[in-house]
Amino acid sequence: MTRADGRAANEMRKVKITRNYLKYAEGSVLVEFGDTKVICAATIEEKVPPFLKGSGEGWVSAEYSLLPRSTQSRNVREAARGKLTGRTHEIQRLIGRALRSVIDLKALGEKTIWLDCDVVQADGGTRTAAITGSFVALVDAVNSMWGQNSKPFPVKDFLAAVSVGVLQDGVYLDLCYSEDSTAIVDMNLVMTGSGQFVEVQGTGEKGTFDQDKLNEMLTVGGQGINMLLDIQKETLGALSWKVGREG
Amino acid sequence: MTRADGRAANEMRKVKITRNYLKYAEGSVLVEFGDTKVICAATIEEKVPPFLKGSGEGWVSAEYSLLPRSTQSRNVREAARGKLTGRTHEIQRLIGRALRSVIDLKALGEKTIWLDCDVVQADGGTRTAAITGSFVALVDAVNSMWGQNSKPFPVKDFLAAVSVGVLQDGVYLDLCYSEDSTAIVDMNLVMTGSGQFVEVQGTGEKGTFDQDKLNEMLTVGGQGINMLLDIQKETLGALSWKVGREG
Amino acid sequence: MTRADGRAANEMRKVKITRNYLKYAEGSVLVEFGDTKVICAATIEEKVPPFLKGSGEGWVSAEYSLLPRSTQSRNVREAARGKLTGRTHEIQRLIGRALRSVIDLKALGEKTIWLDCDVVQADGGTRTAAITGSFVALVDAVNSMWGQNSKPFPVKDFLAAVSVGVLQDGVYLDLCYSEDSTAIVDMNLVMTGSGQFVEVQGTGEKGTFDQDKLNEMLTVGGQGINMLLDIQKETLGALSWKVGREG
Amino acid sequence: MTRADGRAANEMRKVKITRNYLKYAEGSVLVEFGDTKVICAATIEEKVPPFLKGSGEGWVSAEYSLLPRSTQSRNVREAARGKLTGRTHEIQRLIGRALRSVIDLKALGEKTIWLDCDVVQADGGTRTAAITGSFVALVDAVNSMWGQNSKPFPVKDFLAAVSVGVLQDGVYLDLCYSEDSTAIVDMNLVMTGSGQFVEVQGTGEKGTFDQDKLNEMLTVGGQGINMLLDIQKETLGALSWKVGREG
Amino acid sequence: MTRADGRAANEMRKVKITRNYLKYAEGSVLVEFGDTKVICAATIEEKVPPFLKGSGEGWVSAEYSLLPRSTQSRNVREAARGKLTGRTHEIQRLIGRALRSVIDLKALGEKTIWLDCDVVQADGGTRTAAITGSFVALVDAVNSMWGQNSKPFPVKDFLAAVSVGVLQDGVYLDLCYSEDSTAIVDMNLVMTGSGQFVEVQGTGEKGTFDQDKLNEMLTVGGQGINMLLDIQKETLGALSWKVGREG
Amino acid sequence: MTRADGRAANEMRKVKITRNYLKYAEGSVLVEFGDTKVICAATIEEKVPPFLKGSGEGWVSAEYSLLPRSTQSRNVREAARGKLTGRTHEIQRLIGRALRSVIDLKALGEKTIWLDCDVVQADGGTRTAAITGSFVALVDAVNSMWGQNSKPFPVKDFLAAVSVGVLQDGVYLDLCYSEDSTAIVDMNLVMTGSGQFVEVQGTGEKGTFDQDKLNEMLTVGGQGINMLLDIQKETLGALSWKVGREG
Repeated sequence: MTRADGRAANEMRKVKITRNYLKYAEGSVLVEFGDTKVICAATIEEKVPPFLKGSGEGWVSAEYSLLPRSTQSRNVREAARGKLTGRTHEIQRLIGRALRSVIDLKALGEKTIWLDCDVVQADGGTRTAAITGSFVALVDAVNSMWGQNSKPFPVKDFLAAVSVGVLQDGVYLDLCYSEDSTAIVDMNLVMTGSGQFVEVQGTGEKGTFDQDKLNEMLTVGGQGINMLLDIQKETLGALSWKVGREG
Repeated sequence: MTRADGRAANEMRKVKITRNYLKYAEGSVLVEFGDTKVICAATIEEKVPPFLKGSGEGWVSAEYSLLPRSTQSRNVREAARGKLTGRTHEIQRLIGRALRSVIDLKALGEKTIWLDCDVVQADGGTRTAAITGSFVALVDAVNSMWGQNSKPFPVKDFLAAVSVGVLQDGVYLDLCYSEDSTAIVDMNLVMTGSGQFVEVQGTGEKGTFDQDKLNEMLTVGGQGINMLLDIQKETLGALSWKVGREG
Repeated sequence: MTRADGRAANEMRKVKITRNYLKYAEGSVLVEFGDTKVICAATIEEKVPPFLKGSGEGWVSAEYSLLPRSTQSRNVREAARGKLTGRTHEIQRLIGRALRSVIDLKALGEKTIWLDCDVVQADGGTRTAAITGSFVALVDAVNSMWGQNSKPFPVKDFLAAVSVGVLQDGVYLDLCYSEDSTAIVDMNLVMTGSGQFVEVQGTGEKGTFDQDKLNEMLTVGGQGINMLLDIQKETLGALSWKVGREG
Repeated sequence: MTRADGRAANEMRKVKITRNYLKYAEGSVLVEFGDTKVICAATIEEKVPPFLKGSGEGWVSAEYSLLPRSTQSRNVREAARGKLTGRTHEIQRLIGRALRSVIDLKALGEKTIWLDCDVVQADGGTRTAAITGSFVALVDAVNSMWGQNSKPFPVKDFLAAVSVGVLQDGVYLDLCYSEDSTAIVDMNLVMTGSGQFVEVQGTGEKGTFDQDKLNEMLTVGGQGINMLLDIQKETLGALSWKVGREG
Repeated sequence: MTRADGRAANEMRKVKITRNYLKYAEGSVLVEFGDTKVICAATIEEKVPPFLKGSGEGWVSAEYSLLPRSTQSRNVREAARGKLTGRTHEIQRLIGRALRSVIDLKALGEKTIWLDCDVVQADGGTRTAAITGSFVALVDAVNSMWGQNSKPFPVKDFLAAVSVGVLQDGVYLDLCYSEDSTAIVDMNLVMTGSGQFVEVQGTGEKGTFDQDKLNEMLTVGGQGINMLLDIQKETLGALSWKVGREG
Repeated sequence: MTRADGRAANEMRKVKITRNYLKYAEGSVLVEFGDTKVICAATIEEKVPPFLKGSGEGWVSAEYSLLPRSTQSRNVREAARGKLTGRTHEIQRLIGRALRSVIDLKALGEKTIWLDCDVVQADGGTRTAAITGSFVALVDAVNSMWGQNSKPFPVKDFLAAVSVGVLQDGVYLDLCYSEDSTAIVDMNLVMTGSGQFVEVQGTGEKGTFDQDKLNEMLTVGGQGINMLLDIQKETLGALSWKVGREG
């Protein structure tokens, strides 16, 4: 199969992360995976959810939303409907959980970091772009309050996410919308800078899969993660150095 | 008073309208009034609200939303809250009403045009930027379905909106957020290409005003409208010619 | 054009304000503009919204609702629908803002005054009747807690509101429903006892308007305001004397 | 015990039913039981709930609401809260069920009659006043569409409701709020013009009761019902004659 | 009329109460009235509703819900709809009120006992089964925190509930669904161990009723209550002895 | 580590599936994984979601809910809160997706099968128990409408789900609540009767994991799936034979 944009099966779309995209947020990026564009904004709030009050620990929480015309046909605003869809719930729980895995919540202290992921244009892979971009916004936000002090930096490791899928004739990396909508199996991978898995979510949308296909998806996905980690490091520049520092 | 950005009292901020900002929408712009940035997307829907069914007439409706970190402190998502604020209701009613004033709803036929105005960054004047930008997105959307035919073009006239306010020492055009938050009187003007008023909304936020101040605000506001109309025409280029054509 | 009820173009309908209409409220009126009837009840609450806590200042907030059969065809209860319409939001924000313009919120102290405006019968001009009647209920409520003390009375000036519109053949004052529904331009004016504007809201519902028509509407509207101020003063009797007193 | 208003234990408060209280409704009254005042409006809608579609039968449904300052302290609007309280649900179900018991739903045909009961002032007994008043509004609404034809009149019998309670020293009729709030047992009775029970709802609010007390409450309540039926007949005048007519 | 299951007119269905049905709740039963099955779980919460804070008194509150396939056709989940039906509100208010009548809220202290009544299968009489079963769960929950101390036991008396109805040919006890759906009159009775009434709710669903029928229903209902009280005592065994103990 | 109930690391808890648990549902089971108990009810509805209307294809949808005292501390009812939690959304989407993978939606025709999974007791693994039990209820429901005809049976393969986790000292099958709450990695596996994967969801709750641990979890999970498939077949008895039949 030749991909619409001529990519190899294990090739990412063009990825671009623009830092400081917003004027007011403590950290913010516009992340682009090809035509998929997501604004990720990180906000530091000086309080924590009730179950953490007095614990000395912080929290990271994410919200995700599609702009009405990010999609091919207009999707009705969740604010107009008065409630979130199940898909939105699922995605924002995933983003929050993924980011918490690389944050030292004790070192963060009793603060909440909110990641707002608003999809400007949706051409497949919005959740993986959101996680990958949010990581950069998160580092900027944490850095904005960390100063020069010698305490351990609360971001312990890098984190990126990518999708990989089984189409008719094989395994493909970073599916765009038209590929995604015909995929037999769809997998989202979240991995750390040290190559560990944080989330492995494989779903047989239009069929099932065996262990071999699973392994192939993990291999191809891992290649995508490595490319994304490189781009994050380049984008963060000198700040990359702080990630994982013990003080 | 010297303005923060050195503008004259009757000078607009730098205004920029980027057409075709989104890939899927029938018409879309990113409109910028200084640091205020709004994505306006126009969608054509092949149905009308119940009260127009069978009437042969169309409708124009608007929705408005602030991204959580468009503002200085994070504003809670209306989708998470489960309902729109009064401010949002007020603004989206204004945008819809304003745009309908220059649309020939009969010529449009039984279609609804949705204008989605999503504020990426809010530095004052989001509703006036939204109206001014939405007009351009609307023209593009209408044009996308009008083709070469000889029927009258459903957009009858140009339309722009601007804010003007009374500060301590006089009347100022196009208030940015820091000016707006200290304004004694705040006025939003919506006017057509032929210089007629569509909306005059003056509010004594921190004081009242007399007829003289009202007239001064109308004069200064009218100057701003003219500048915006010029920018819209330049942005639309050859398409400007269709606005108001009888067929 | 001869008006249905034989009024002159610049004549108000019969206006009647009945004080102490309810037994429990700190201030209450039934206000009638012809067949438009609104119950306005003022409640004093010993707390303020979060953004004013500890500020020493008070607040005035309004709620507005149509009884289901105040209108020609039954309107569905907002409580049954589970949310307010945009129109309701817009009107209750206007009423609250207008009343705050004549209240010295510092002199009031950390209290909230709620104005509940429930429309028993709606024949046009419900929002202007609500503002005009609420002012009287507000004065009664403030007076009920002010006693004989020598501090400045927190109500600084009188306040009334009126509608004025452009119909086919000219400008008319205080539109009833059948006039309002055919108006080309609809304007609501809120003014103080000293002749200052608080709100000027002119909307081209079925057409646009120029500066001359705007001026004519302001003139005719001002005449209506004066009539309403006279009725308020007569209704309040000796209590009128306290409005604007410095101590 | 001497009652606050000097009534005998088995005496109703002053009851007044004002017909045609609203201009637009098909039937409407203001019903007063002493200081308790309820506007009851009847609306005829040319459709029925889904479970009756095509059945040839009609329906009667009621909605009930307290105005915010009908009560001693302000009660929060259900529309603002976004949902009805359990108490409201319970009362509007009771009103609807009671009225349906005297309506020939087949004779009515596929129409819904809505009864909107809005409490202007609440001094105990709002649900019994609402039922008693709604009956009159219902007769007027049915009559408005029945004309001179010879079909059976869909209202089969009169209907009234009253409260009766056990206080410290005995059984009392038509409790006002101060009595109701100290009642040991509270009973609401709904009865027809022919002396049959429609609803018997006795609740031991602050204690229990035996068969003797139950019988005493039924006797005293029946006396109240008879007084209310007389007032309904007087209020309806010649129209009383149609109730129960077979054609 | 012969009943579907061959019962006499004044005979209960087979009643079974299984204690400690759930592992985590402080008290819980599965109560069965024939094919009607309800799980009743009692939870002790160390706080009270706002209106009781600091009063030293406790509260008892109930929630009621039908599982989607407890009924013949699937009923839509209230959680999916986003709000409770009026019927649910009415039933859970009844259950809470009934149980409070036999609890010494002062002796309970500032705690809330929640009764969760979840209907697994609904064949008529779910509210009466819920009250009867909840009483047993409540005793177990109270006992779990009472220990061996000598203070009065907060449960003052036994409590049970039963339905009784008028069908075509007479009065019947404990209606199953098919009987209930054709009943002319439907009555729910709640009575204490000492034979006092707590609630008498008789409703003419398809007709009205006179004093004689009312008395007959009370007699037959009382017989059902006695049978239920015997079963509760047997179920509770030695614990029965604590109910009503003064210390 | 010795497990609380003495199980081996790769041993399931005692699993029990009781068919025909409810009287009215087309298919229903009580499924028990140790102390985890879930009622699964299957309902056949003669319509499909809008996006399938006219397609000739059917749908399978699931709803999931915890009874308030299924958990150690009482969880607030989603119906009382007015909305579902994100966790509930996530689980019910998973159950529906999993079941659809083994249903031939074309063979089913334009019907929806609802699976209602209500958790009576929650001791870990509620979603895997719900999928495993729902499969059996689904087969019964499909069978109830399939009769003796020769068309292919719409259930194409068996389906079961199990959880597996990484604890301090290794990989464990079918975690109970106390194990789950301390797991470093938590994985849910859904597999078919022919050993294919439908869902692989591994989450690093308190740490990350590498490829070896992933493989170990897949192996142990596969053993659990096989045990569950055996129990399903035994429970379904002769009906097992129909699963996967081509006609």
